[in-house]
Amino acid sequence: MATRMAERRDGQTGGALTGAEARALIRSGRHKGHTAGLAKGHVQGNLAILPADLAGEFLRFCQQNPKPCPVLAVGEPGSPALPTLGRDIDIRRDVGHYRVFRDGQCVAEPTTLDGVWRDDLVTFVLGCSFSFEWALLEDGLRLRHIEQNLTVPMFRTTIETVPTKHFRGGLITSMRPFKPADAIRAIQITSRFPAVHGAPVHIGLPGAIGVRDIMKPDFGDPLEVKADEIPVFWACGVTPQNVVATAKPPFFIAHYPGCMLVTDLHNSKLSSF
Amino acid sequence: MATRMAERRDGQTGGALTGAEARALIRSGRHKGHTAGLAKGHVQGNLAILPADLAGEFLRFCQQNPKPCPVLAVGEPGSPALPTLGRDIDIRRDVGHYRVFRDGQCVAEPTTLDGVWRDDLVTFVLGCSFSFEWALLEDGLRLRHIEQNLTVPMFRTTIETVPTKHFRGGLITSMRPFKPADAIRAIQITSRFPAVHGAPVHIGLPGAIGVRDIMKPDFGDPLEVKADEIPVFWACGVTPQNVVATAKPPFFIAHYPGCMLVTDLHNSKLSSF
Repeated sequence: MATRMAERRDGQTGGALTGAEARALIRSGRHKGHTAGLAKGHVQGNLAILPADLAGEFLRFCQQNPKPCPVLAVGEPGSPALPTLGRDIDIRRDVGHYRVFRDGQCVAEPTTLDGVWRDDLVTFVLGCSFSFEWALLEDGLRLRHIEQNLTVPMFRTTIETVPTKHFRGGLITSMRPFKPADAIRAIQITSRFPAVHGAPVHIGLPGAIGVRDIMKPDFGDPLEVKADEIPVFWACGVTPQNVVATAKPPFFIAHYPGCMLVTDLHNSKLSSF
Repeated sequence: MATRMAERRDGQTGGALTGAEARALIRSGRHKGHTAGLAKGHVQGNLAILPADLAGEFLRFCQQNPKPCPVLAVGEPGSPALPTLGRDIDIRRDVGHYRVFRDGQCVAEPTTLDGVWRDDLVTFVLGCSFSFEWALLEDGLRLRHIEQNLTVPMFRTTIETVPTKHFRGGLITSMRPFKPADAIRAIQITSRFPAVHGAPVHIGLPGAIGVRDIMKPDFGDPLEVKADEIPVFWACGVTPQNVVATAKPPFFIAHYPGCMLVTDLHNSKLSSF
């Protein structure tokens, strides 16, 4: 449920905005709710804010697990700026809805971080699948979960992340069905986008990664895989959320699911070639 | 049988030669037989020589079907030189064993084209799977047909080539089994090599392309696909051989299966990025 909107986009005004314009709307309180479809074509990011004493370890965890945890930017300790993602970003106000955790429990869901921000906090922005889905759609591939207005199905797997001292857990994947030739094309396209989960981690044999019933996802909605299709599994941004929640750090801030940071970067700029 | 050695390489001296040295050996008659493993790392090519009045159409067929018919070089009409593949190439003597066809029938299998060459002949050199298999092996992937010293299994499919007036026919594919993560890697690697068949054309569902029994290939040897593997299908250079044979041109020359043109190009130079 927490991730229900994280991978969803549907009818929404604001598609023609720039990233800066979208953030201005959010900052002023005039845009509430999820950011799917906002400032179309612009990179949106998952948010994780940790105290500096855990931030180094979390960055190492991300470095070791780039497919589920592709780092788009890391802030300076105490600084709310993320200049590589947008000149004017103030991470305390530029996301519409936050979740604040203490000892692994969500204790508040504020709309700004005024009064919550601390001088030891380090901001991580991680790539999300909106960007590679944009690339797939631009190429003319069809995404059934979008066409059916469903949340992409997500599955816990037996693939383990590479752990650090506090951060560990199984890889969580999102699944999209394709006909075989389209699956090959989807692999090619997403391979060009390592900053937003990159190439799939698995194709074709759900049981081999511990997925027993393709119609019973652990998160998101069930999605049909037709007889002439194969399931394609990508590393999912729910993985780091799950890893951090499991570690129960004393203090932690995330975006509210679906309410992402909208950046100035165009998705196409994340293509590695 | 005609293609039995075309996709095979096994123990063979001469692996450390340059392309030019390998051709000199062949030209002098000191190297006989197949070229698998000769001048390791160098591009080898399939040969097709057609009269000029059909050459234009054949080139168009190749242009329309780049996956089965990746053109490495086309000679000038009447010229035995292929300067982009090797400065000293004389196609009349640099392949060890040829097959000469009249009206679709093989009428001779000479070791040179002396007395056969004509001023209206156009030489086509097409990329072959040796090059992408080299890239897969360099990356550490394992190829079962090589490990078991078998000819790669090849299958007729229901995928049609894009026809021209005289040239038409179904796509013939070669199949290699991989675990899913390795299949994804193999797609990435071969996508970088469009000049030698490029990315696979199909994965995972043999029946969807008309392959009824994966253990009964149309050419080559049967090869096990284990329960934790998926079959990956590439367009195969047997396709143009089959297309030309079916067209029964009045005159046509090919290499004898397995006796390819060895070029000066290193396989790595075919990588598109």
